Amino acid sequence: MSTEIPYKIYLEESEMPKQWYNVRADMKKKPAPLLNPATKQPVTSEELEAVFCKELVKQELDDTTPYIDIPQEILNFYRMYRPSPLVRAYCLEKKLGTPAKIYYKFEGNNTSGSHKLNSAIAQAYYAKQQGLKGVTTETGAGQWGTALSMACAYLDLDCQVYMVKVSYEQKPFRREVMRTYGANVTPSPSTKTAVGRKILEEFPNTNGSLGCAISEAVEAATTQEGYRYVLGSVLSQVLLHQSVIGLETKIAMDKYDIHPDIIIGCAGGGSNLGGLISPFMGEKLRGEADYRFIAVEPASCPSFTRGVYAYDFCDTGKVCPLQKMYTLGSGFMPAPNHAGGLRYHGMSATLSELYDQGLMEAVSVEQTSVFAAAEQFARVEGILPAPESSHAIKVAIDEALRCKETGEEKTILFGLTGTGYFDMYAYEKFNDGKMSDYIPTDEELQKSIETLPKV
Amino acid sequence: MSTEIPYKIYLEESEMPKQWYNVRADMKKKPAPLLNPATKQPVTSEELEAVFCKELVKQELDDTTPYIDIPQEILNFYRMYRPSPLVRAYCLEKKLGTPAKIYYKFEGNNTSGSHKLNSAIAQAYYAKQQGLKGVTTETGAGQWGTALSMACAYLDLDCQVYMVKVSYEQKPFRREVMRTYGANVTPSPSTKTAVGRKILEEFPNTNGSLGCAISEAVEAATTQEGYRYVLGSVLSQVLLHQSVIGLETKIAMDKYDIHPDIIIGCAGGGSNLGGLISPFMGEKLRGEADYRFIAVEPASCPSFTRGVYAYDFCDTGKVCPLQKMYTLGSGFMPAPNHAGGLRYHGMSATLSELYDQGLMEAVSVEQTSVFAAAEQFARVEGILPAPESSHAIKVAIDEALRCKETGEEKTILFGLTGTGYFDMYAYEKFNDGKMSDYIPTDEELQKSIETLPKV
Repeated sequence: MSTEIPYKIYLEESEMPKQWYNVRADMKKKPAPLLNPATKQPVTSEELEAVFCKELVKQELDDTTPYIDIPQEILNFYRMYRPSPLVRAYCLEKKLGTPAKIYYKFEGNNTSGSHKLNSAIAQAYYAKQQGLKGVTTETGAGQWGTALSMACAYLDLDCQVYMVKVSYEQKPFRREVMRTYGANVTPSPSTKTAVGRKILEEFPNTNGSLGCAISEAVEAATTQEGYRYVLGSVLSQVLLHQSVIGLETKIAMDKYDIHPDIIIGCAGGGSNLGGLISPFMGEKLRGEADYRFIAVEPASCPSFTRGVYAYDFCDTGKVCPLQKMYTLGSGFMPAPNHAGGLRYHGMSATLSELYDQGLMEAVSVEQTSVFAAAEQFARVEGILPAPESSHAIKVAIDEALRCKETGEEKTILFGLTGTGYFDMYAYEKFNDGKMSDYIPTDEELQKSIETLPKV
Repeated sequence: MSTEIPYKIYLEESEMPKQWYNVRADMKKKPAPLLNPATKQPVTSEELEAVFCKELVKQELDDTTPYIDIPQEILNFYRMYRPSPLVRAYCLEKKLGTPAKIYYKFEGNNTSGSHKLNSAIAQAYYAKQQGLKGVTTETGAGQWGTALSMACAYLDLDCQVYMVKVSYEQKPFRREVMRTYGANVTPSPSTKTAVGRKILEEFPNTNGSLGCAISEAVEAATTQEGYRYVLGSVLSQVLLHQSVIGLETKIAMDKYDIHPDIIIGCAGGGSNLGGLISPFMGEKLRGEADYRFIAVEPASCPSFTRGVYAYDFCDTGKVCPLQKMYTLGSGFMPAPNHAGGLRYHGMSATLSELYDQGLMEAVSVEQTSVFAAAEQFARVEGILPAPESSHAIKVAIDEALRCKETGEEKTILFGLTGTGYFDMYAYEKFNDGKMSDYIPTDEELQKSIETLPKV
């Protein structure tokens, strides 16, 4: 066991990044513009500013500025839970008997339990700067809602969260964390919004859906004075904020002269993967270095591996702008797998374009194999991972075992986005041998892809 | 806001302590010896070795060796989740408007969610070294059981946990974390042991108790070939292992030339408080420095503040040795408050002796005020604290507000032992305004103190 590289690399505060990195600036072919769903023309700042904060709209539309200063108040907040450790998985390597060197960037050491806090504080900060009273959002599994609640509590900003009804009822702990941070949590669909009332009238027994919760949150933002809507993934602004993950990783690796051969991340909307790979992808785009990038998605929701690259709605309610992305169709209903954060029909436009250009690979994995990898990881590395993050673990282990076969001493880096402390129902199912896999049929995918809008 | 002291101080791996510190070695008047409950004579190594691992018995009885080497394999495990950060609570200070400087040593950044892992790995290691097949233990709230499960998974050691039945049923998530780490978790009382069957016969509807679970775990250890019993608090060996908390804190403070005036910790069995204060208390005992130490206990279970200093049973089942300590009587049934880790009738013998010598203070606080402090802390410092840890937060805030009145710039250090992610039922009660306080009457205490054994 090498003693040169510590188990965990923590940057000094003085070494922490002071700017976010915007990977779009280094892309020759940029992601396609967002379109107004009514006119099919590129959306304007003015249109977006009715829904989103002004400064965030600016960041969303800026595909030329490579570095953007992180405001001091956000840096202060980051210092409460960052830098996150870059961990050398010595114990996992030993257990696998692989010559590969495995590293993971662990984003779970904060109460939201995931990387979501990196963008939550940024979005809340710009809302506060704009003089707003509060923000609205939706949450499914609850990581994003929790992160936003924490950020809003810190900034004394009102936080209204529409939580998918089935999660609200089945994940009371997440709900209570949000309430402890002062958020107003409403099960969706609710009678608070016109869209919610309409859905309840049509489907009085519905469990709710992320698409419906988004529509309610957007309505709440646009009908209340002094509110805007915020979103935890997919958008380019979110990838920008999440670049702090990759920047810290790169600084830490450069410090110890570590060059990753393979960089792996789970991909739902793409915020974590995009954030982790951004600075490395920048080097690849500028021809300074080469890396293999692997996006890992659940077999039950395979946007990259079985979707199409086309304009689609970001939300089921079809109120948000159209985005060109790898998508299964906004009507796609993913099976109720346990990685709630990866159950999204679409994908970040930036990552979609990079994937389309062949700069990144993607694989899909089944959930029982993901939980087996999660358990193996937990037992030797000590951390109980989130189901989402475990998708990356599964593929990192696969790659490390491949190195064992070939004898190659590759360096593997993956993103460990969060902890699974609020996912124990899923682990219970796995421990009891009652977890099943689900892969959509070609017919099912064809049917939902047919729902794509004509552009 | 000073920029000299970082938000979080992480030691380099090379700076981490390589020895534990045994505060008993510097005490002129030592803690009283453990007694055999039958003979009332000091217990011998041989007697203890029937229940506990050999090396741990040696540590338990050693009150003269000040420093004990931490074995390399334990150091390796520590490196997976240690050093824990020493955090400067800049945001809390600002919110309170206090001139006091507040620091906390945060032990919650690991999957067990608390400091318990520090001793769990040590005890599991010595069991492995002795060639044992496994260990048995009891758990109430679940932190200790989780920590031990993690340590045993790492060392490939069988782990049998007797979990108080009411917790087993009400805290299914904790149970599943333990199962994910491969532990065998049994609701107590169970039909697996003679003592369990006897209790079930007498009280078929019992919810179980910590005392009963201890008795089952001890029976399981002594009736199975190759097993020993391990305990997560109270014992001197546990304080020894937990000294890593205080040692890291002291190294970090010395590095930045910080001198704490007041050191605060919650006290149930005393493992966290003892671990945190040990090296500082050592300086005080040797006359090298002075500090105010404050033990914080729940008003519902006030061992220090309303108990007596006497020999008592450590367990309700009365199978363990007698220990001289501050106690409410082993028959004391604490009210069902939400800080499960502090619901213990007795206290560490070492801390009891230090308190009796006037070297340490103690206060008791009511749980609604504790949760109010927890919420205030969470909203500005980002971390959702465990109910146990929040007792220390409450008193740290009280002391900081006292400084605000007097204008004194005191330096306050407290132990933040863990996170409250598995305590959201309690937070829900608090959020709903349904939490109540309970303080035992003098009559109740008198009655349970009468159950003390005659020595």
